[in-house]
Amino acid sequence: MNFQQKLQKIVKRNKSLVCVGLDPDIKKFPKGLKKSPSSIFSFNKAIIDATNKLVCVYKLNIAFYEAYGLEGLKQFKKTIEYLKKKYPHIPIVLDGKRADIGNTSKMYAKAFFEYWGGDALTVYPHLGLDSLEPFFRYKDKLVILLIRTSNPDAKMFQDVMVGKHPYYIEIARQIKEWPYPNIGIFVGATYPHELKQIRKIFPDKIFLSAGIGVQAASIKQAIQAGRDKKGENIMYNASRSIIYASSGKDFAERAAEETEKLRDSMNKYRFEK
Amino acid sequence: MNFQQKLQKIVKRNKSLVCVGLDPDIKKFPKGLKKSPSSIFSFNKAIIDATNKLVCVYKLNIAFYEAYGLEGLKQFKKTIEYLKKKYPHIPIVLDGKRADIGNTSKMYAKAFFEYWGGDALTVYPHLGLDSLEPFFRYKDKLVILLIRTSNPDAKMFQDVMVGKHPYYIEIARQIKEWPYPNIGIFVGATYPHELKQIRKIFPDKIFLSAGIGVQAASIKQAIQAGRDKKGENIMYNASRSIIYASSGKDFAERAAEETEKLRDSMNKYRFEK
Repeated sequence: MNFQQKLQKIVKRNKSLVCVGLDPDIKKFPKGLKKSPSSIFSFNKAIIDATNKLVCVYKLNIAFYEAYGLEGLKQFKKTIEYLKKKYPHIPIVLDGKRADIGNTSKMYAKAFFEYWGGDALTVYPHLGLDSLEPFFRYKDKLVILLIRTSNPDAKMFQDVMVGKHPYYIEIARQIKEWPYPNIGIFVGATYPHELKQIRKIFPDKIFLSAGIGVQAASIKQAIQAGRDKKGENIMYNASRSIIYASSGKDFAERAAEETEKLRDSMNKYRFEK
Repeated sequence: MNFQQKLQKIVKRNKSLVCVGLDPDIKKFPKGLKKSPSSIFSFNKAIIDATNKLVCVYKLNIAFYEAYGLEGLKQFKKTIEYLKKKYPHIPIVLDGKRADIGNTSKMYAKAFFEYWGGDALTVYPHLGLDSLEPFFRYKDKLVILLIRTSNPDAKMFQDVMVGKHPYYIEIARQIKEWPYPNIGIFVGATYPHELKQIRKIFPDKIFLSAGIGVQAASIKQAIQAGRDKKGENIMYNASRSIIYASSGKDFAERAAEETEKLRDSMNKYRFEK
């Protein structure tokens, strides 16, 4: 089953567009859990076990694991293995923001799709097509290109005007011509106008968006701008607002409550005209 | 000592602008060495011990380690620790091509500058200044921004015309205004014209360049385009042409010979008018 098929199934089953971001920061770990890299898997497991009926996908940003070195990366691997074994119907997005010249990208593709074992990976498109082909060759995996990010300074280099349109539109239009079906698109939810423009360019692609929650994007605007014609084909990530909803022993239940709330408010707008 | 000081010293001491790229590909390991991730450190150590008097810096591209998972990353760490202990006067560039939104970049900065322990890191500038500040805060480390890469499709998105100049010039000019002294610049040596243009914008910055060797950039052109007024402040990486110069038991000696040859032909052009 390829990523798209897997995603469609789980979106239906869990009635959800919520992507929970498992981005562990041990300083923020709840009471009762050792503030140590070796607790990461336990933390993730509790969140996963509490939220797996409410999400469409989990996203792991590897930076939050690499910061804790080999121990952190061991916990990263363990979390992915647990997900694949216990919840094989839930796709795993790895947020690595990788890409390099072709010969090196081949190595990253091997790392993320074979060794770590993700179903999707975020990548920088800026080095051009030859830097991305090694990823596209994994046909069942989704390769999510960063087109317009969610951070405040995103405008600085991504909105530079190229003739009459900004740079991100220029690269989106070129990418649209690429003959790879497993292209995914990342656009920050904090910029609904940009999200809407880019959705128009890629009406059928799977989108990943982020910025709902701590980055405070409006859910209504994000949904209306990002959904496809059927009200789907997009995953909205929230990390900190869910996984650190409580710093008490009830952190996993509170994470589930937040996920449910988010899912339900998204669903309110998904099918609205 | 900050990166710049360290680099100036070793360039003088070893009379070299050569950066040897330690990018292990176990399939290419020489006879007598097990084609297994656990041999990576032994391979690197042999190359380092043979070339340390001929280089100004070593560069490790983490993709070539991450492809072999936790074992590969263990060998990455071991190589860095060996370099720091045995050759503390040689700076270590980590080629990670990282960067994410601020909160996440902080984690990558921690990983590369604290845990792995590099002296410099390559990063994507495309998310804008707030995505890079967590790296710049490590004042003794060099943060090398990818301005124009060495691969054939580099032109695709980096040369898009913004008014009368290409995109890479636009971002270079903006970056020039940033108040951080520890900015380094990456430009591919396969594009001497672009390298020369970007050197003009940053006459005093440290450059990293690549593409000499397998990617076949001309040494003479690369040196004339990339050097500063004193004939220095730039590191030229070569990986495959050096570390796989021989697939026999003499691989380390042959790597040293290739490094010496490269160093000497660079030096021929460094001070030429």
